[in-house]
Amino acid sequence: MTQTHIFHDLPIPDPPTTARPLDVVILAAGAGTRMRSQLPKMLHEVCGRPMVAWAVKTAHDLGARDIVVVTGHGAAQVEAALARSGVRFARQDQQLGTGHAFLLGAAELRGDADVLVLYGDSPMLSAETLNAMRRLHTREANALTVLTSELPDASGYGRIVRGEGGQVERIVEQKAASPAQLRLTEFNSGVYLMDARAPDLAAHIGNDNAAGEYYLTDLLALYRGQGSRVAAFKIPDPSEVMGANDRVQLAELARLMQRRINERHMRAGVTLRDPATSYIEDTVTIAPDVVIEPGAVLRGHTEIASGTVIGAYSHLTDSRLAANVQVKPHSVLDGAVVGENSDVGPFARLRPGTVLEEGVHVGNFVEVKNSHLASGVKAGHLAYLGDASIGAESNIGAGTITANFDGLGKHRTEIGAGVFVGSNATLIAPLKLGDAAFVAGGSTVSADVPEGAMALGRGVQRNIEGWSLRYWRKLAAAKSEGQLARKLPWLSGWLTRQE
Amino acid sequence: MTQTHIFHDLPIPDPPTTARPLDVVILAAGAGTRMRSQLPKMLHEVCGRPMVAWAVKTAHDLGARDIVVVTGHGAAQVEAALARSGVRFARQDQQLGTGHAFLLGAAELRGDADVLVLYGDSPMLSAETLNAMRRLHTREANALTVLTSELPDASGYGRIVRGEGGQVERIVEQKAASPAQLRLTEFNSGVYLMDARAPDLAAHIGNDNAAGEYYLTDLLALYRGQGSRVAAFKIPDPSEVMGANDRVQLAELARLMQRRINERHMRAGVTLRDPATSYIEDTVTIAPDVVIEPGAVLRGHTEIASGTVIGAYSHLTDSRLAANVQVKPHSVLDGAVVGENSDVGPFARLRPGTVLEEGVHVGNFVEVKNSHLASGVKAGHLAYLGDASIGAESNIGAGTITANFDGLGKHRTEIGAGVFVGSNATLIAPLKLGDAAFVAGGSTVSADVPEGAMALGRGVQRNIEGWSLRYWRKLAAAKSEGQLARKLPWLSGWLTRQE
Amino acid sequence: MTQTHIFHDLPIPDPPTTARPLDVVILAAGAGTRMRSQLPKMLHEVCGRPMVAWAVKTAHDLGARDIVVVTGHGAAQVEAALARSGVRFARQDQQLGTGHAFLLGAAELRGDADVLVLYGDSPMLSAETLNAMRRLHTREANALTVLTSELPDASGYGRIVRGEGGQVERIVEQKAASPAQLRLTEFNSGVYLMDARAPDLAAHIGNDNAAGEYYLTDLLALYRGQGSRVAAFKIPDPSEVMGANDRVQLAELARLMQRRINERHMRAGVTLRDPATSYIEDTVTIAPDVVIEPGAVLRGHTEIASGTVIGAYSHLTDSRLAANVQVKPHSVLDGAVVGENSDVGPFARLRPGTVLEEGVHVGNFVEVKNSHLASGVKAGHLAYLGDASIGAESNIGAGTITANFDGLGKHRTEIGAGVFVGSNATLIAPLKLGDAAFVAGGSTVSADVPEGAMALGRGVQRNIEGWSLRYWRKLAAAKSEGQLARKLPWLSGWLTRQE
Repeated sequence: MTQTHIFHDLPIPDPPTTARPLDVVILAAGAGTRMRSQLPKMLHEVCGRPMVAWAVKTAHDLGARDIVVVTGHGAAQVEAALARSGVRFARQDQQLGTGHAFLLGAAELRGDADVLVLYGDSPMLSAETLNAMRRLHTREANALTVLTSELPDASGYGRIVRGEGGQVERIVEQKAASPAQLRLTEFNSGVYLMDARAPDLAAHIGNDNAAGEYYLTDLLALYRGQGSRVAAFKIPDPSEVMGANDRVQLAELARLMQRRINERHMRAGVTLRDPATSYIEDTVTIAPDVVIEPGAVLRGHTEIASGTVIGAYSHLTDSRLAANVQVKPHSVLDGAVVGENSDVGPFARLRPGTVLEEGVHVGNFVEVKNSHLASGVKAGHLAYLGDASIGAESNIGAGTITANFDGLGKHRTEIGAGVFVGSNATLIAPLKLGDAAFVAGGSTVSADVPEGAMALGRGVQRNIEGWSLRYWRKLAAAKSEGQLARKLPWLSGWLTRQE
Repeated sequence: MTQTHIFHDLPIPDPPTTARPLDVVILAAGAGTRMRSQLPKMLHEVCGRPMVAWAVKTAHDLGARDIVVVTGHGAAQVEAALARSGVRFARQDQQLGTGHAFLLGAAELRGDADVLVLYGDSPMLSAETLNAMRRLHTREANALTVLTSELPDASGYGRIVRGEGGQVERIVEQKAASPAQLRLTEFNSGVYLMDARAPDLAAHIGNDNAAGEYYLTDLLALYRGQGSRVAAFKIPDPSEVMGANDRVQLAELARLMQRRINERHMRAGVTLRDPATSYIEDTVTIAPDVVIEPGAVLRGHTEIASGTVIGAYSHLTDSRLAANVQVKPHSVLDGAVVGENSDVGPFARLRPGTVLEEGVHVGNFVEVKNSHLASGVKAGHLAYLGDASIGAESNIGAGTITANFDGLGKHRTEIGAGVFVGSNATLIAPLKLGDAAFVAGGSTVSADVPEGAMALGRGVQRNIEGWSLRYWRKLAAAKSEGQLARKLPWLSGWLTRQE
Repeated sequence: MTQTHIFHDLPIPDPPTTARPLDVVILAAGAGTRMRSQLPKMLHEVCGRPMVAWAVKTAHDLGARDIVVVTGHGAAQVEAALARSGVRFARQDQQLGTGHAFLLGAAELRGDADVLVLYGDSPMLSAETLNAMRRLHTREANALTVLTSELPDASGYGRIVRGEGGQVERIVEQKAASPAQLRLTEFNSGVYLMDARAPDLAAHIGNDNAAGEYYLTDLLALYRGQGSRVAAFKIPDPSEVMGANDRVQLAELARLMQRRINERHMRAGVTLRDPATSYIEDTVTIAPDVVIEPGAVLRGHTEIASGTVIGAYSHLTDSRLAANVQVKPHSVLDGAVVGENSDVGPFARLRPGTVLEEGVHVGNFVEVKNSHLASGVKAGHLAYLGDASIGAESNIGAGTITANFDGLGKHRTEIGAGVFVGSNATLIAPLKLGDAAFVAGGSTVSADVPEGAMALGRGVQRNIEGWSLRYWRKLAAAKSEGQLARKLPWLSGWLTRQE
């Protein structure tokens, strides 16, 4: 008998409300000293994307009109990282508080839309949650809606003080809280959705407090002072507003984000043998009935079609895999395209520009770079195929190397269909092997081979009888007494028997 | 000071009771829509075995006489998967409820034994637990024993309603439950052990309910209606009756099952450096004092003897390893036999038919397939050994390839004892190298080499003085100005110094 | 908005108190039957270090003057393992209890210092915690301080019985406890810090109890009997005194210890993409802004400088990496030194004696052993470089093998600067290639090559037209009808077209 309730069901996303335009201000000026990093805190990555870029993505997912990122510490780096993300920037040169940061950001807005405040170091907050918040904001005709959640011990946070009817009265900061208020479990996430007056009202935030900072929290009182409706949107999962102040917290965020991504795939029909060790960036597309073995790393714009299996500890970046591909354990693919029913690995490396058509076999210790392998090509063992095109059904022997580099530049190797390249062949590019050509094992080939011809380019074998006896005797004589007998007892006995 | 109670101790298995014969009906007809899969839900795997096959295994472990699997959705696939598992099948073409499914299954039974009902999507329920249930069933002379457990919130399940003396009175379904009953924490797992009247009584189950389905639960009332004793067997761990409706739950089952398997090995004396990333199928046999490094995958009928170490991220299938073998990290073994004191890897690949005798060394980037390596053979680097037999103490140089494929078929390479194969040798099969033969480095060998002979099959070296100067000058001239100096500054300087 | 309190902050270590000398007795005589091992329990490893060696390390970290390890089961092995760790040993041949063991150990002490009792199977207890205990011991002028903690259910432990004022009155063993005492949650860890009278007092411990054993616990009553002050130092985290009786517990200790090590690195500025799968021994040094991808194993005296990235599933032992090195996934390094801006892997193997200077590139399926690669050397694919020195900027072609082994001994290959070694070259050592030398692809080189010369040592290519037609026809004729057409349809069609 199955049970469903032990597991947490993800909320079903609702379509975004589109009634009013929405602008977003992302506060991303903080220092992040505890990261102990040369990299600005906001650029530390969670599942392959800088934290601040998660907030930008969420804003886009909400259909935001204008997005302003307020930068400060490491501003140049943060702005460079977001240069092509469709946002504008406001610089906060002095860290005078969230209210000050917001005011700088809001100055970039047109002033005629709802304004949502997000944070550059809180990547977990989802568009689904924020859309639900917007629906409440609209339904209740709020002037300001603050996103809140609960923690058994909310120390460090501002607490939500509610009136007898449950309405939000104010937010009290940790330092200013009474003992009774300190026991409140509902806390302020700092995420606010406000009507178009927010920028104007923010100008009235003061800094008459111990820290001399401008607190965004004051907006709530300013709205209330105007008789406007202020309310809270309380979410059940406090981890959605979790931020990262150090790398322990960063790793925890990555774990939670990865779980969210992985559960999405599993619910859509992807088998993850061990979701705890499946590292999948959210830019990856995976069809139902794909199987991901433990430890796989899937990055960038990787796309995987149905029926394909990704072997344990494989590492795929920006690669496109058709249906029913077998990627065997310990394969590394980057910028590769793999056709249906092909198999790759174990220990295969496909580098950018690799295209495998259908039913191609690339086996162990084979590297392919910037090469096109037509249907049915087999390169099973220990080979390097660089800057090559290989026709259908050709067989690339073990140990084959395309010598594509002349010391400065690269050259192409063009191999026709039905070609048989023998083992340990060295193919010196530029080179053409015609259809149905044959390269004898151990050959070095530097001149083109016509269709149907065999290229032979190796030394002629000769056997020298009795040679081993002389060789080993001489070798043994040069070494310390008994070394041969100790290291090679069978051979030592054989030598004795030859006497 | 050590402590023992922080850890959960596995129950000590008892021998199965054998008093009365036992038949088992496994309900496996469900659809599993939320799996979003072409594969029937019952065939999704947990730790390498389809879910329904876990239930079949448990039935066999209980010493069941007849086992009937009731199939429905994907019946043909499920029956094919279980074709050789010693079970019979009953088809439920219409999904009319568990009572209907049981009736179809029970029709295949002889009607003279206890009947146990299991589920094809609940693989965690152990034979130990079910044997304990059977002992209670016998000791209390129950007509029907229902397996139950507790959850803080049992929403979705039928609840167990007990009388004042604690006796089971009835099972009330979620939909029919009163508010007070909804707060009950003891729930019905759906697993029943019943006396031989069960098939007959099941024929009286009706479908006069909202869903129009036949509920197996009704059997309890039917038994009580006959004045028969009905009781519950409550287990402490509700996860034992957990099923999988989607792949998130499937992954959770796999995690729990893997933990059970791994704890069994650890308690038996196997060191798992990280049980959370040790993927061991329950068909694997491991001796005490084996060490399994993180990330190892052990599958099928793999057997590992004492003192052997399995390196990190190694992947073993159906392989047999003798004592004191070192499998270094990132090795992939499938269908291989490895003798005592051998070492393999890192980055080694042993394919089916590989036999390594004692003290064999197979090093990095070496592939062995269908080959026998006698004691003391060394193949340390970058080699492909396919369809070969290699005598004791032979040394296979780096880069050696057995060219075993002629384009259509495979041929054997027979290498004697004490043979020295030089680096980058190409051995064109069929080929025999006699004992103590010697192959010069870089040779291609296509004719047999007699015992003690040396085979030389490579080009004769000649040095062309001054060639580099001309080459690089010409190359540089053909490229854009300064490219050589930029890419190869030392060489550029050398060229200048030659003027 | 970031939050800090969801995460557990590590205590900030204080400098050790140095007021009085400290001696440490480590009890390590226990049997460990449940380990089911040939290896003494105390030598089972946690994160690469035997359990007993963790206790010795902690004692050293405390600045202990004399350290005595009391051995018993497997004494010879335990003593051998600790032979060079600066401790003395006392043998407990009969297991007569902790009191007896302590007495044997204390006999090795000078009797003029505080004495701390630790356990050889409790590696988690940190020097920070013990220093805090010492400060309390000194501040309160205790004669005996017992380290305690709390568990919801402390079954199996001795319980701490406190008086009305909270003072420690006695320790009651599980078996002797009243029902009320069994409900006590504070338990005795067995770790005691005592003044210099401890050895003398221990001689008065009796064995007048059910087990006939001498219990160290009795010291508490003996001290109290002298009117001396006895107190407890209660720690918040009971896992710090967790021991290992079987390998399930051992794995749990390893998990906790690894988390401690990893959190230390993360707080110091190291990014661990997944701390749960980062296996880092505590002897490893990592600079800030190093990034460790999932599954990396870092062992021994590995040192990693800032900006370096360790790719997924890489395995490093005793290696030293300079700044901004890229170790790509699936690389195995042991005893290697890697210079700035070098890149290694994927699938690279660096063995002991490997030195890469700056900007060296070692690519996939390349093994380097006991070799020095100067700045800018490139060895990108499928090569074995053993016992070689390679000058700046040289390029090692794919498939290059240094044939360094003559059957008994190793020889060196000396390659100058700016050398171009073509693909699939076989370099038969001892060998010297002069600066700017050039080796033609596919050559076997056994004689030295002068500066600027080109070495050519391969067969001369000739093409045999029409050969393929004859070959495949003959091959097809020898096989069963239709095999060629089935396996190689394109080639079969080509053959037909040649008619």
